[in-house]
Amino acid sequence: MDINFLFFNDFETLDIFGPIEILSRIENVKAHFISFQGGLIKSKQGHEIETENIATVNLKDVLVIPGGQGTRILVNDKEFISQLTILCSKAEYVLSICTGAALLAKTGLLDNRKATSNKKAFEWVKSISSNVNWIRNARWVVDNKFYTSSGVSAGMDMALGFVSDLFGVKKAKQIAEDIEYIWNKKDSF
Amino acid sequence: MDINFLFFNDFETLDIFGPIEILSRIENVKAHFISFQGGLIKSKQGHEIETENIATVNLKDVLVIPGGQGTRILVNDKEFISQLTILCSKAEYVLSICTGAALLAKTGLLDNRKATSNKKAFEWVKSISSNVNWIRNARWVVDNKFYTSSGVSAGMDMALGFVSDLFGVKKAKQIAEDIEYIWNKKDSF
Repeated sequence: MDINFLFFNDFETLDIFGPIEILSRIENVKAHFISFQGGLIKSKQGHEIETENIATVNLKDVLVIPGGQGTRILVNDKEFISQLTILCSKAEYVLSICTGAALLAKTGLLDNRKATSNKKAFEWVKSISSNVNWIRNARWVVDNKFYTSSGVSAGMDMALGFVSDLFGVKKAKQIAEDIEYIWNKKDSF
Repeated sequence: MDINFLFFNDFETLDIFGPIEILSRIENVKAHFISFQGGLIKSKQGHEIETENIATVNLKDVLVIPGGQGTRILVNDKEFISQLTILCSKAEYVLSICTGAALLAKTGLLDNRKATSNKKAFEWVKSISSNVNWIRNARWVVDNKFYTSSGVSAGMDMALGFVSDLFGVKKAKQIAEDIEYIWNKKDSF
């Protein structure tokens, strides 16, 4: 299984590195760290990560979209949203963390679906699309192939939920134990 | 306050990115992402992060040392341990996560001090130094300027503990709330 972790400038660190830690522990996973432009991408916290250009990777299987300050600009970047729509359409599963849900909502692919996002940015995310059935009181929400989580660290709980759904709760609990993480439930917030 | 996050090949992702997320939220913190060689450093999970050479940064204030597979080789790398000893000596506070405590123990600076580490690698870490008072049943331990945490995600709890000790529990709780993290107590394990 290929898992593509999408990076853009001003992404929020833990949004993406929490799920990377968890999802990389699934057997036979190939993780790719991608961006639309390739090369170094800088987080909100100031560190830079080397990324592959999306042209070089397999776009099926899983796509993970972080949130962060960068989403505020990208949500109005037509070219970015257009490219993201293609990526999300090709992926078998799409996981968004925090305000990554705003980008996902902007593609229109969440229309008439349930989704959640960061509690502190909830009104802004809701304002991006009124066609989404936004669920405030949830740590993460699953609808069809779309997994959306609440803010930052909730991405880890969702990642464990994704592992549980696809590979069984035993595997998810084993990963949580291995990283000494106390898994919060889907309906906690 | 300068916080230097130390990277080496085969570091464990969440060990360091959890604390980066939390400690970067302290006001007036300047985070540096450093390594002994500078340039790109690869995690156990396969992503590469750009680092500054230690020669270019201020070595006082805070040093954060992750764990991971890379520690198994580095603990026997005399040059690395010698350089790490200097870094730790210069720092006002040293924080280690997971098996990062093995590297710290090897410097001798933990001799006659209390410390903890990853529960699943505890016997190996203990074997590195019998001069340390190893505390198994703790999520993190503080002794003088040294903060040591249990495995992977326990680093986030310790980082919040560090914030609480230096800037007050209110600030730590505010950061936990902002990232929707449920802070685990010092004596949970």
